[in-house]
Amino acid sequence: MNKPVLGILGGVGPLATALLIRMVVEKTPARVDQEHIPMIVFNDPQIPDRTAHILDRSQPDPLPEMAKVARWLQDAGADYIAIACNTAHFYYDGITAAASIPVLNIMHETVRAVCDAAPDVSLVGLMATRGTVASGVFETCFKERGVRLAVPDEADQQLLDALIYEQVKANKPYDAQAFLAVARHLHERGCDAVVVGCTELSVVYEELGEKPDYLYDSLDVLAERCVGWYCAYREIVSQPAAI
Amino acid sequence: MNKPVLGILGGVGPLATALLIRMVVEKTPARVDQEHIPMIVFNDPQIPDRTAHILDRSQPDPLPEMAKVARWLQDAGADYIAIACNTAHFYYDGITAAASIPVLNIMHETVRAVCDAAPDVSLVGLMATRGTVASGVFETCFKERGVRLAVPDEADQQLLDALIYEQVKANKPYDAQAFLAVARHLHERGCDAVVVGCTELSVVYEELGEKPDYLYDSLDVLAERCVGWYCAYREIVSQPAAI
Repeated sequence: MNKPVLGILGGVGPLATALLIRMVVEKTPARVDQEHIPMIVFNDPQIPDRTAHILDRSQPDPLPEMAKVARWLQDAGADYIAIACNTAHFYYDGITAAASIPVLNIMHETVRAVCDAAPDVSLVGLMATRGTVASGVFETCFKERGVRLAVPDEADQQLLDALIYEQVKANKPYDAQAFLAVARHLHERGCDAVVVGCTELSVVYEELGEKPDYLYDSLDVLAERCVGWYCAYREIVSQPAAI
Repeated sequence: MNKPVLGILGGVGPLATALLIRMVVEKTPARVDQEHIPMIVFNDPQIPDRTAHILDRSQPDPLPEMAKVARWLQDAGADYIAIACNTAHFYYDGITAAASIPVLNIMHETVRAVCDAAPDVSLVGLMATRGTVASGVFETCFKERGVRLAVPDEADQQLLDALIYEQVKANKPYDAQAFLAVARHLHERGCDAVVVGCTELSVVYEELGEKPDYLYDSLDVLAERCVGWYCAYREIVSQPAAI
């Protein structure tokens, strides 16, 4: 088996997982099946809702199940892990503690990608779950780069909640116009960059006819890193050992 | 963990695997993440090309690696297996012999779906790899139902080869017009139904703006069966035990 094997902690949500896999495949510099990245995916629908637990700690804690899947992926032969859910990264430390292989961090990678692509940005908008907003992880990461974060007002957050929970996760048609309206409102409030910071919203973003150039998709960034990490590793192992 | 767990023998090819996962998710009657089908996917790029081996037995045999993945999926907890590749089903008996859990057969399921949907059909067209055509599996299955099979002429088969190997598997843009022309030629030759019998061609079919109603997509049929099998199993286990 070619190394490194990518492990995907999936099912959070399932459609976002399918999209991550497709993005990774499409970004891989492969000309035939045999040049693609070996991948183990575990779509685990038992993982409790992340936002529900962040907002109300009496709700089921998703960490034990996510830690179990991370360990399972490692035991199954994965060399690094990607998680197709932003909100899950509130539990990042607990997940990494459960496995001894690297776990890519979608939030850190996205913040870095935005700051690299738009070094002069001072205010970034965030389209995410209430759990991700409440966790404050994106806010802290951007603050370390001297960037402030703006979140949607209550009416717009309700539109995002509906898109995420009542449309994408519920296998229903989704309202791309609502998605674009929330993005536009953040842009009009002075956000030169707006992060698509929920992988269900990435599913909506992916199918937009025309994509506003101020949007940065976290799932796309994660897929890019999955491939970049693989290629970097391959380059290292293909070099002759130093004498 | 909810039962049954779907195992996907993937990577043959990788893009078709991503599409199968998305189709299964979209067809699942789930309203929240937690109601989705638990799924283990192994995208194994080490599996040698199936068509190359069917056409020239001196080429690497893909069966040992596919049998290994089937066994791996079973050991990892899968309760049934789907394979995202028609040509791989030439090796179906060898794969099923390697695992003691059921393996859905995309070819048998597709033949059944076509004959159920179009009971009066007498001539079916096949769009597939040269390996699938040479294997004769579709031909035999349709013959058992009293249906004859037509395959593309050499020029059209070359168009399909290019679509499969030089475009979809090679991560290049694909020529939907060529796909439609081959389908139309088979239809004009009297095929009331035409099977999209290669999962790379399913990737092209999936993104067609308008889909001719005489086309039957094997990957769509397989996804339907993955969900149907899951729901039937759930129904059985949810019934109280007989006294």
